[in-house]
Amino acid sequence: MTCALACELKVTVAAETRGLRVMALKAGDKSQAARNGLKEKVLTLDTMNPCVRRVEYAVRGPIVLRALELEQELRQGVKKPFTEVIRANIGDAQAMGQRPITFLRQVLALCVYPDLLSSPDFPEDAKRRAQRILQACGGHSLGAYSISSGIQLIREDVAHYIERRDGGIPADPNNIFLSTGASSAIVTVLKLLVAGEGRTRTGVLIPIPQYPLYSATLAELNAVQVDYYLDEEHAWALDVAELRRALHQARDHCRPRVLCIINPGNPTGQVQTRECIEAVIRFAFEEGLFLMADEVYQDNVYAEGSHFHSFKKVLTEMGSPYAEQQELASFHSVSKGYMGECGFRGGYVEVVNMDAEVQRQMLKLMSVRLCPPVPGQALVDMVVSPPAPSDPSFAQFQAERQEVLAELAAKAKLTEQVFNQAPGIRCNPVQGAMYSFPRVQLPPRAVLRAQELGLAPDMFFCMCLLEETGICVVPGSGFGQREGTYHFRMTILPPMEKLRVLLEKLSHFHAKFTLEYS
Amino acid sequence: MTCALACELKVTVAAETRGLRVMALKAGDKSQAARNGLKEKVLTLDTMNPCVRRVEYAVRGPIVLRALELEQELRQGVKKPFTEVIRANIGDAQAMGQRPITFLRQVLALCVYPDLLSSPDFPEDAKRRAQRILQACGGHSLGAYSISSGIQLIREDVAHYIERRDGGIPADPNNIFLSTGASSAIVTVLKLLVAGEGRTRTGVLIPIPQYPLYSATLAELNAVQVDYYLDEEHAWALDVAELRRALHQARDHCRPRVLCIINPGNPTGQVQTRECIEAVIRFAFEEGLFLMADEVYQDNVYAEGSHFHSFKKVLTEMGSPYAEQQELASFHSVSKGYMGECGFRGGYVEVVNMDAEVQRQMLKLMSVRLCPPVPGQALVDMVVSPPAPSDPSFAQFQAERQEVLAELAAKAKLTEQVFNQAPGIRCNPVQGAMYSFPRVQLPPRAVLRAQELGLAPDMFFCMCLLEETGICVVPGSGFGQREGTYHFRMTILPPMEKLRVLLEKLSHFHAKFTLEYS
Repeated sequence: MTCALACELKVTVAAETRGLRVMALKAGDKSQAARNGLKEKVLTLDTMNPCVRRVEYAVRGPIVLRALELEQELRQGVKKPFTEVIRANIGDAQAMGQRPITFLRQVLALCVYPDLLSSPDFPEDAKRRAQRILQACGGHSLGAYSISSGIQLIREDVAHYIERRDGGIPADPNNIFLSTGASSAIVTVLKLLVAGEGRTRTGVLIPIPQYPLYSATLAELNAVQVDYYLDEEHAWALDVAELRRALHQARDHCRPRVLCIINPGNPTGQVQTRECIEAVIRFAFEEGLFLMADEVYQDNVYAEGSHFHSFKKVLTEMGSPYAEQQELASFHSVSKGYMGECGFRGGYVEVVNMDAEVQRQMLKLMSVRLCPPVPGQALVDMVVSPPAPSDPSFAQFQAERQEVLAELAAKAKLTEQVFNQAPGIRCNPVQGAMYSFPRVQLPPRAVLRAQELGLAPDMFFCMCLLEETGICVVPGSGFGQREGTYHFRMTILPPMEKLRVLLEKLSHFHAKFTLEYS
Repeated sequence: MTCALACELKVTVAAETRGLRVMALKAGDKSQAARNGLKEKVLTLDTMNPCVRRVEYAVRGPIVLRALELEQELRQGVKKPFTEVIRANIGDAQAMGQRPITFLRQVLALCVYPDLLSSPDFPEDAKRRAQRILQACGGHSLGAYSISSGIQLIREDVAHYIERRDGGIPADPNNIFLSTGASSAIVTVLKLLVAGEGRTRTGVLIPIPQYPLYSATLAELNAVQVDYYLDEEHAWALDVAELRRALHQARDHCRPRVLCIINPGNPTGQVQTRECIEAVIRFAFEEGLFLMADEVYQDNVYAEGSHFHSFKKVLTEMGSPYAEQQELASFHSVSKGYMGECGFRGGYVEVVNMDAEVQRQMLKLMSVRLCPPVPGQALVDMVVSPPAPSDPSFAQFQAERQEVLAELAAKAKLTEQVFNQAPGIRCNPVQGAMYSFPRVQLPPRAVLRAQELGLAPDMFFCMCLLEETGICVVPGSGFGQREGTYHFRMTILPPMEKLRVLLEKLSHFHAKFTLEYS
């Protein structure tokens, strides 16, 4: 039996254990319910919230569930053509072995257990920082709720960070809301913006490919997703003409009110030029769109000539009328950058030119969930206000930070190189963020076979890849792509040597797969 | 000038700076916008999500914003009739001075900064526990994402806890989902249940008085809130006849599918008897309702003769058909109990008899937000699996736990006693949870004055109380109450001596207020 056929069999089973099992079970449940005289359940697939049912989130979708199963099988001693599953599906640096930044964890440990403040094993600046944070907490404890927008002191530190980052342009702590990762802030702002019914429903422009938090949230909120395509031929750049096309077509069936930007790009790795950002801002202003700028990868820029420009800075420097009028929300997180502290769920949003009354509504909405996790808030503080050159922790902090970022830059380069040597794989430069999103050619017979199995062709490819090599990547269909093209998203986070092996294995598998389906 | 009149003036100002300012600003904005040739904003009170606009959350509403302002004024040296604001509005134990439980914080510090594992200053069981948790984390770090339902090992520990709590009735880790506090799990389950339009919209039965997370979430999700009144004359007990009345009336205009229970009660402090719980389960089963049991105060039972019975246990012990068929979700949290670790946002939900496909949908929905905060997950683990008698930390843990719970019991008693000595205040026994919800008589002239100011009468009372004494409590109107009755919710969390003074001040203020408006 060829490898591809063997994979296929397993994938068929996997597909059945997912989608097809649904139908089987439903039918089975009913007949069994009837046999036993059981009542129908109150909450079933048929009676549940239809918007939630439509939600899809590929980054943790069926392929990841299958990866978990495979890990379990390996632990149980089941023989596989690989010895470990490599999860390159999600931007989770520490899960891939990246060590936490010492200063961050020292301050956090001091905050969690203040008895340590008398220990000689912690540097003085870490102790000072911990005391400063604890002073700002209710009851001087991380265990108290903070106010719903986050600890005042930390929002002030965020404001100072933004001012430094943006060359002195002022930031107001009252416009900063700490959040549970960037995700919760993005959802909150989208929630505010969703209104209308039928042809007046809010339309939200999102890039294709996108990070599926956007499509999932729009499905849940029953808003209209309006796709604009990034230009793969030009390193996934954003083209305002394409924005305009998408907007004008959408006006036939909804009311587009929001434009989402992800810069640096996820999953594309593209970093926008200042000119591009200016054009986007002019476009948003002219067309009356609220701007949402997902800037969680602002520390992750690798390519020569690429720089991160914040939307807030560009918008302000463009002067009137943009500076005083263009509405903007910009998001940041402690999960990415050099720190990779995903598990703590820390982040923030800065709103610019937001209506004051709406801002009060936003605070009210956040207050229902009480407050973002306070340890995550504390981490935000350290990230926006790291040790200064005169501090005892500075040298080590700086060295650790640089090491992570330099390695990411090298891995970005390596990824592009190895993939572009493989026939049938084409990979744009990974200018920033943590992902490559290469395009793969899939032979027509593989596409056909996938369709027979009821799978997207790239899902079929990725499932076969997982079954054969243990490499877990996410099919492009989960992020969106032009009809007839196929991609996958792979993180650049595995340690350098592992990444090299992984890239080669993947390229090799693609060649074999292509051969077997030709 | 009398005290009440002076308060009134300030309250008028406060009301204006809240509600009335809205209108003033809106009018002002428009004319100014017109004058300057500015465009209308994309996102305004008029264009925003109308469901979000309807959300109310009294626990952090206008009265708390005013309390924050007063604190600021005090810091700036403004003379007030009090020297500090006492926030008895929210169940935030550590903000009120409660010290964290040592074992919890030791383990957490070890997890945050594993270098401490070699320190001689930490007990061996804390180190073992930290290592066990870290082993279960991605990359052995709290900084990695966990799977979306929470760390497997911790869900297993939760299952064991539930089994011990419920006298051996089995619990399945696959039915347990860790969450960001209990709140996020409650919202997730409600989200699944909301469907339909017009007369088929999901109706959700909630107690009155209720914890306003419920009313706020139902407003946001555009579900129908169906009120059933708890019986104030019988210590806020739940009466199934009243449930039936509420349900049958609601069937005229919506499709009631969910019954929410809060036990021990927030804000009522009532603890349900086993008989009551059995009756509720029979009712839910007969009427085809999904049960949601908010059991976050399960460790907070003080009154003699009162015991906590979990809905899961009672339902299972009732046998067929309830045990195999009645759908239930039960919620717990690390924010309450004896630990009061609100800031970490840890919690979980156990689902019972939930449709397997819906359960997969729930996991999918949670996966969009990636995972609950991992430090909060770690705390859940310690709470469900505290030191055993043979562990070095046991004695101290047990002593700290008992001290907190014994003091809460004494404060519950004191609160009831002092309030019931005050004419015009009547307080049911605080059998459990962390709040009293006394009924206050307000003189007709005060009610009239409040109406003139556009305030609920008990909001007017609480605002005057705050301005005059610095005591911050939440008006009953924020939780719901029978028409024409007035209450407030006050936590029993301030330290004993402070609580005594506070209760007396409050009673005294009520007497003065009554006199001045008679």
